[in-house]
Amino acid sequence: MTAISPTPVATANAPMVQRTDHDGFAVLTLNRPASRNALSDAMIAALQKELDAIATDASLRAVVIAAHGPAFCAGHDLKEITGHRDDADRGRRFFADLMARCSAMMQTIVALPVPVIAAVEGVATAAGCQLVASCDLAVAGAGARFATPGVNIGLFCSTPMVALSRNVSRKHAMEMLLTGEMIDAEDAARMGLVNQVAPAGEALDGACAFAARIAAKSRLTLRTGKQAFYEQLEMGLGDAYDYAARVMVENMMARDAEEGIGAFVEKRQPVWREA
Amino acid sequence: MTAISPTPVATANAPMVQRTDHDGFAVLTLNRPASRNALSDAMIAALQKELDAIATDASLRAVVIAAHGPAFCAGHDLKEITGHRDDADRGRRFFADLMARCSAMMQTIVALPVPVIAAVEGVATAAGCQLVASCDLAVAGAGARFATPGVNIGLFCSTPMVALSRNVSRKHAMEMLLTGEMIDAEDAARMGLVNQVAPAGEALDGACAFAARIAAKSRLTLRTGKQAFYEQLEMGLGDAYDYAARVMVENMMARDAEEGIGAFVEKRQPVWREA
Amino acid sequence: MTAISPTPVATANAPMVQRTDHDGFAVLTLNRPASRNALSDAMIAALQKELDAIATDASLRAVVIAAHGPAFCAGHDLKEITGHRDDADRGRRFFADLMARCSAMMQTIVALPVPVIAAVEGVATAAGCQLVASCDLAVAGAGARFATPGVNIGLFCSTPMVALSRNVSRKHAMEMLLTGEMIDAEDAARMGLVNQVAPAGEALDGACAFAARIAAKSRLTLRTGKQAFYEQLEMGLGDAYDYAARVMVENMMARDAEEGIGAFVEKRQPVWREA
Repeated sequence: MTAISPTPVATANAPMVQRTDHDGFAVLTLNRPASRNALSDAMIAALQKELDAIATDASLRAVVIAAHGPAFCAGHDLKEITGHRDDADRGRRFFADLMARCSAMMQTIVALPVPVIAAVEGVATAAGCQLVASCDLAVAGAGARFATPGVNIGLFCSTPMVALSRNVSRKHAMEMLLTGEMIDAEDAARMGLVNQVAPAGEALDGACAFAARIAAKSRLTLRTGKQAFYEQLEMGLGDAYDYAARVMVENMMARDAEEGIGAFVEKRQPVWREA
Repeated sequence: MTAISPTPVATANAPMVQRTDHDGFAVLTLNRPASRNALSDAMIAALQKELDAIATDASLRAVVIAAHGPAFCAGHDLKEITGHRDDADRGRRFFADLMARCSAMMQTIVALPVPVIAAVEGVATAAGCQLVASCDLAVAGAGARFATPGVNIGLFCSTPMVALSRNVSRKHAMEMLLTGEMIDAEDAARMGLVNQVAPAGEALDGACAFAARIAAKSRLTLRTGKQAFYEQLEMGLGDAYDYAARVMVENMMARDAEEGIGAFVEKRQPVWREA
Repeated sequence: MTAISPTPVATANAPMVQRTDHDGFAVLTLNRPASRNALSDAMIAALQKELDAIATDASLRAVVIAAHGPAFCAGHDLKEITGHRDDADRGRRFFADLMARCSAMMQTIVALPVPVIAAVEGVATAAGCQLVASCDLAVAGAGARFATPGVNIGLFCSTPMVALSRNVSRKHAMEMLLTGEMIDAEDAARMGLVNQVAPAGEALDGACAFAARIAAKSRLTLRTGKQAFYEQLEMGLGDAYDYAARVMVENMMARDAEEGIGAFVEKRQPVWREA
């Protein structure tokens, strides 16, 4: 799948996030390798813009988030933040806005109507680790590493832990958060932070393989199921069943379910039409 | 434990669910191997009836759910569902009823006063996978496989995911739900969907071994603990402790706890009397 | 790290819980090996007292809980409980008080401003297993074993399960609770109950190594992050992000974060000042 591997582009004029479209899915590539793809104000805005466009693009059934350069994403841009220490409010307003916009972008991934798959090579730290945890699926190259190191600089990774602690068990999350130390790809897979470890350099291929398989499904069905997944997780068992049963009935009455079940019974390929 | 392995019975007149009683526990065996033990309207009703009888049977301290034939349970009966597409409402009422009754049956397993142990050989898919996830414990034969493949036919496994997502981590659940692909018994054990992998063909023996060990306990204690387990899981930490402390005190004042603690201190076997 | 291994002291006059202070962290050692460090009324009070002192001790950034003797902690003291069967109320009031105080002590660990790390050699059963599950991190010696065996004596481990079921998956928790059987250190690590398995006899060294690494961080940052971790876990995703973003902003405005980020940018060691 070398053909779809993005070519590293590191010029300052190149878009911060590159979008390349494939058959039914898009790849978004973080494109500031020199700054380790830090989630600066501008990078968050660029990601938000691409995600918003994808949310309404009926031609897509999956998205991959990848990155150029040796780091997947090093979290927030500390120099940018430090630069606002000279503001009249010592940076409070800038930082509060940054947190609000970053949290909104992470929740946009969760709310996106199509599945999002992280393809991680190199380090994913702090908000970069949060980005991986916020995706529905993740593939790590064998050399990928993950950390929530804010504790080392006096700024606990409190927003990253919202996503991390919903991916891995409490003691595993606490170990990462309290020590700030790196875990490798195998440990990330064992803990549940990533689904799969690919050979070094092949995380994008692995993520695109997931995306291609998912892109063969009905967009309506993916959208229905992904939304219901996160909704029902926040409910008690009885409410979750009442809700999920209603979702199933509406899904069942949709044209794509009638087509899909009909195709299965008749042993033919379904033709999806709904988005 | 070959003696308690049920003999395959596949005639149309045989009960859909067979119950065989052992020393302190019952085995319910899904008995429509030709239709892969699909959770048809009638199969759900038969399971519900057996579970309701077990709920009030003070002689039992555990239940095993097993299956005849090459499939443990293939989920809902798609032909039955498709047959209602000709109804005036295109099947909406039938399907809503089916979902309500199936969800009620799954919740009956969770609410049953005695532990329920799945013994899985062959495939457990869609609502069949939900059945395994709804049990308190599960043993898989080495050849068992699990999937939530609704996404492949346009009907996302939204009710199965209620149970699945309460057994395994988010990314593991999402991988199964979004790809619809099979996972094997070892992966199911690694993810937490099953407790144990037995040699192929020995899942029933493994489940019965669990049941026999559990059947040696006090029914009152099992009932108290199982109910409290699922109740407290839905609470915040402080409320969960307040609730569990009250449960402990009532449990402590019961005759079986006095007997059990006395027997332990006196190094003798306890004699349970409460149900 | 043999130097900090506590010397076994088993005399009746010795404190029930010994505190030894190290560079930035304290070790609390349960010191009733002859009674397997049971959580008697007096042991709970001694632990509560030490934890309360630690909560306001600005010199500490971590705590290790260890134990003298072959058992880490065997849970409640059954002889003490049985002794109250002759009370007018058959022990109800004593037991209700004991549960309340034990639950409060476990929640004090969770609410403590500094991380708590269990160092487990030998068996940790019932409320002893709860103690391990309540800590933020845990290291087990290779010979350590864990169980919630209350079901065997008619008294389900309902309060221990509050902590256990927030550490491990449902089917794993249920297996321990329903069978009452021991799991070994490797299984405890696989399930998420402990972070690390150390060679037999080296759990304390492993826990102290964690404590020393954590003690190098800012106490304010640890306190902020640990509290936020458990708070946000009980919220839905949107509320958790709103809350965590506010926590991040306040953390960012603190002197230790300014110092930590500054030191990182300037490639020097930070000097923490806040508690």
